[in-house]
Amino acid sequence: MRVAGIMSGTSLDGIDVAIVDISRKHAGVRVKPVAFHTTPYPKLVREALLAISNSMTHTATIARLNFLLGELYAAAIRDTCRRSRVPLDSVVLAGMHGQTIFHEAEPIEYLGHRVASTFQIGEAAIVAERTGLWTISNFRERDMAAGGKGAPLVPAVDYLLFRHRRVGRVALNIGGIANITVIPAGADREEVIAFDIGPGNMIIDALVYHHTHGKQTFDRDGRVARHGKVNRRLLDSMLSDPYFALDPPKACGREQFGREFVAGLIATGLPLADLIATSTELTARSIAGAIARHRGISEVIASGGGVHNRHMMRRLRDLLPDHEIGTTADHGIDPDAKEAIAFAILAYEFIQRRPGNLPSATGARHAVLLGKDSPVS
Amino acid sequence: MRVAGIMSGTSLDGIDVAIVDISRKHAGVRVKPVAFHTTPYPKLVREALLAISNSMTHTATIARLNFLLGELYAAAIRDTCRRSRVPLDSVVLAGMHGQTIFHEAEPIEYLGHRVASTFQIGEAAIVAERTGLWTISNFRERDMAAGGKGAPLVPAVDYLLFRHRRVGRVALNIGGIANITVIPAGADREEVIAFDIGPGNMIIDALVYHHTHGKQTFDRDGRVARHGKVNRRLLDSMLSDPYFALDPPKACGREQFGREFVAGLIATGLPLADLIATSTELTARSIAGAIARHRGISEVIASGGGVHNRHMMRRLRDLLPDHEIGTTADHGIDPDAKEAIAFAILAYEFIQRRPGNLPSATGARHAVLLGKDSPVS
Repeated sequence: MRVAGIMSGTSLDGIDVAIVDISRKHAGVRVKPVAFHTTPYPKLVREALLAISNSMTHTATIARLNFLLGELYAAAIRDTCRRSRVPLDSVVLAGMHGQTIFHEAEPIEYLGHRVASTFQIGEAAIVAERTGLWTISNFRERDMAAGGKGAPLVPAVDYLLFRHRRVGRVALNIGGIANITVIPAGADREEVIAFDIGPGNMIIDALVYHHTHGKQTFDRDGRVARHGKVNRRLLDSMLSDPYFALDPPKACGREQFGREFVAGLIATGLPLADLIATSTELTARSIAGAIARHRGISEVIASGGGVHNRHMMRRLRDLLPDHEIGTTADHGIDPDAKEAIAFAILAYEFIQRRPGNLPSATGARHAVLLGKDSPVS
Repeated sequence: MRVAGIMSGTSLDGIDVAIVDISRKHAGVRVKPVAFHTTPYPKLVREALLAISNSMTHTATIARLNFLLGELYAAAIRDTCRRSRVPLDSVVLAGMHGQTIFHEAEPIEYLGHRVASTFQIGEAAIVAERTGLWTISNFRERDMAAGGKGAPLVPAVDYLLFRHRRVGRVALNIGGIANITVIPAGADREEVIAFDIGPGNMIIDALVYHHTHGKQTFDRDGRVARHGKVNRRLLDSMLSDPYFALDPPKACGREQFGREFVAGLIATGLPLADLIATSTELTARSIAGAIARHRGISEVIASGGGVHNRHMMRRLRDLLPDHEIGTTADHGIDPDAKEAIAFAILAYEFIQRRPGNLPSATGARHAVLLGKDSPVS
């Protein structure tokens, strides 16, 4: 079955569309990539999304952006097909994450009730009508309705893609935050462990932005880190952050390793190249430490922007000499397309009426069907 | 199939839950009422909804209210079942309208695109999870995606309920606005005509509120109107409003017959009872005029708050002596429950993959499936 996955991350870069052929393979799925393309958000739309995310707005703005994003997602799907010469009518299903404009996983007291909530926009009815694709959207709400945090959802897909009968594997994503899905050999769904390790590229990217006066947004190939010197005292101090010692499930974010954390590093007065080298080492060490703690794991399958940081990947291989460290590309999946592909797979699972969440990852009370269905006929 | 319909109108009175047994009958449906109950919104929730409808707010407020309304809708369904001793697990499907917080049927220029939009909240994933009911929601978006105004949706249901092979019928709803669905004998879907006639109870209610210094919100049994005197000159002037002469499809609302219109009436200095009598006569005459214009119609099936205004119903019978004028109650449907029942029927049509909109009523380019599906398993 040919399925489109549409993902827009909180970085607001644009709309990732991945088209894949999905088939069932034992308890998991097999995917064959067909096309991948990122359509940047128009500047005005990006600004409007920034303006409404977690802030004051007019109800009309959210309503209008919801319908407008539907148009943009539909156009991105059609555009991806055209560029890759994939006939749109060869695609039958779309899994659309939407754009998160609010996420509050921990219930708060609200009008006399305990309420947790999440909010993604991008109108699936528009996507279905414009593309003719059977469209599945709104994947996070049902997990939260079942008491989960609505995230992370990708570990369930890691399990479907990478579970191996005799090989223990870790799916490692190095985005702003680094997270892993630990899949023991022959694991059942319940045996999968998934959590945020700590900072991935977030600190490095912020330091590089500062170092290059805004000219670069990430450390291409790890060049800066390679020439900087790791400051051992700072590294030990950062590694002693109690978060790293916490047992999973655990999650971290910008509130922990964001702007303030980076300002603190810069205030040390150490050369920026050394800070970047040290932060890269922090990411590599914390990842290696988290992986080494799990017995019986022999393969690491990496994805996310961090896989392009050659220095970081080399350090990971140094630190985990007994692990085979590759990327999703070794399994035929473009590391940059992985998240969009994940939502194609979640849509595929939904229409087969298979639960999409991993309660061990999200904290939900039980496995549930994830998504809302906008059928075409 | 036992289905729950859940409706919350823009009056923000509360949550109507109707439970009906639906079966197919030729091209239409047959419904057998099982339970009906209205759960008022808690005061804080009503105030919060008023505050976000078509105004400035925080994105978080909409996200939280969306999930909170899901909880309240689920509780209202459970409560309706308990009161009526209907086992919840005898119900299999729910059709949930949600609460409209924004509706803009005419496209506007927005960020370089033409955008029409509508926005209903009340999280279906919560309803599905808490009640175990297969839940269909978000009925209006797809019609708008197909170029329609997302409203009115009830005429499609009138057609399913009241189409008769040999009898021409009109379904008349007298709410704030009066609207009709004209269903010629043996009509196809395309032959159905539906439009807003003009003011229903809106003007009368506002005048009664003024007349009784806020103590009454409607003219019970039409008592005030019966004792007032119709001012012929004012009546003729109101009936000469060009809206009444427009050909359908047409829609009107508060912007036309709302606060300013009523202030103008009061400014005439005429006794309030006479104004109320005249406005009641306006509603009766405009309805009778609209119905009389359609040949071959012999039955009128009324619903909405206006059916409780005995004076108005008597005037309608006087003005349409050749029509048989009854209410939906004659067809086993509580006139107050009709809208909630309509969304139970639209959910039933959705799961049978039958289009829910009447393009002749909404202006859509074609018939489409209306709704998003939140399945349970």
